[in-house]
Amino acid sequence: MMRRSRASAKVNAKPEGPVIVLVRPQLGENVGAAARAMLNCGLGKLRLVVPRDGWPNESALAAASGADSVLAAAELFATAEEAVADLVHVFAATARSRDMIKPTVAPRAAAERMCEREAAGEACGVLFGPERSGLTNDEVVLGDTVLAVPVNPAFSSLNLAHAVLIVAYEWRVAAASASLCARADYGATRPATKAELLNLFDHLERELDEAGFLHVVEKRPIMVRNIRNLFQRAELTEQEVRTLHGIVTGLSGRRCGGRDPD
Amino acid sequence: MMRRSRASAKVNAKPEGPVIVLVRPQLGENVGAAARAMLNCGLGKLRLVVPRDGWPNESALAAASGADSVLAAAELFATAEEAVADLVHVFAATARSRDMIKPTVAPRAAAERMCEREAAGEACGVLFGPERSGLTNDEVVLGDTVLAVPVNPAFSSLNLAHAVLIVAYEWRVAAASASLCARADYGATRPATKAELLNLFDHLERELDEAGFLHVVEKRPIMVRNIRNLFQRAELTEQEVRTLHGIVTGLSGRRCGGRDPD
Repeated sequence: MMRRSRASAKVNAKPEGPVIVLVRPQLGENVGAAARAMLNCGLGKLRLVVPRDGWPNESALAAASGADSVLAAAELFATAEEAVADLVHVFAATARSRDMIKPTVAPRAAAERMCEREAAGEACGVLFGPERSGLTNDEVVLGDTVLAVPVNPAFSSLNLAHAVLIVAYEWRVAAASASLCARADYGATRPATKAELLNLFDHLERELDEAGFLHVVEKRPIMVRNIRNLFQRAELTEQEVRTLHGIVTGLSGRRCGGRDPD
Repeated sequence: MMRRSRASAKVNAKPEGPVIVLVRPQLGENVGAAARAMLNCGLGKLRLVVPRDGWPNESALAAASGADSVLAAAELFATAEEAVADLVHVFAATARSRDMIKPTVAPRAAAERMCEREAAGEACGVLFGPERSGLTNDEVVLGDTVLAVPVNPAFSSLNLAHAVLIVAYEWRVAAASASLCARADYGATRPATKAELLNLFDHLERELDEAGFLHVVEKRPIMVRNIRNLFQRAELTEQEVRTLHGIVTGLSGRRCGGRDPD
């Protein structure tokens, strides 16, 4: 049932709007309403991370009001990490501030950036957490950018499908109006995918564990988050990721496997 | 249960966002979800025209997820005319084009105009029709401006609460960012309320009926709509409405009651 992530997945070349990733959605109705909102705005790529009430889901189908194609094409994943593996730039939708050094944008600015990145052939996605609790801190870390919808602070609990609608709507408006300009020329390299980045993190944290750097158990999660956020912000290229693998291997005193990073 | 319209209602002086008018909403869930979306965006003024499943409504309360204050303060009306009587500028939300000579704007432009008008003390409202059929043509005529949400033409059926959310969200963004500029100085007069305008239409159409001008039964509705739209576009002041009453009375050959228009 779960699709495996593919580190080698090609970066999406054709701009079709962001991938919408619903992480552990609780209510089928909300998944269906989100699919309807997506298709209203021309988005079709839905990914689900272990939906609570199973999949496929009758309530989702009823609430989709005809957006069946989005539900039928929805992809299932076991973790948020796997669901974003082939993406280049990820937004993490969250209402609460998380004390992370990570840029935060409103939906309008997010949509403009998505259009720019799509024009450059870089696949984007937006992570949404479960209705009750939102994304975990570790899932927010997966995002390059935090996406925060400006709401009434006195009544800030936004329905999941409503949050998806606002992001999808802003994307549609931006895509229709933007004179899209391609971003930096990467030459022979390209931006790293999330799978490549996560693989680097695994490598780095494994070495840090072995070196005893992360030995204080209660501090480990926050340290790992801070380190990941730091590298996320760098917007690494695939070549830089290879270089960093080499550095980690080199620093930890082992023989560098395979060819040297160039 | 129904509140009477008051032609003498004062124009709202304090900008608190547009009034949201749901005309014959079918599902309580949608009313509740609309209330939640409104309060998320800081809107609190909800009006309902004969909700199909009665009022108050349990499904609405459940779907509001805590936005109970909006539902408790909702006002009930027997007709859309009465629901907009004390407003100065009304937007009619509709997906279908109606072959009317009436300006059409997207939610973003509508929100900017609402903010301008609110800053000038002019109460605004947005009319939304029933889920299945939308507003009738006569209800669209009540609007000064048509509000059309840009959606995927291949899948354009927007959920009622989703449509309300997009309008409310755009209002919130506009209200937060706009450097609001007051509109034209009306001097001793002020813009006409909808009640004053509708009263003028009644007067005019009564005289036109008596004069035999509207005698072709099958053409009457479209002629009435065209005439109303024409006067709507003029954005009449209260003084101009009085002048027009005088003109109608004068032209129809009767003694002008009360004092002459000045």
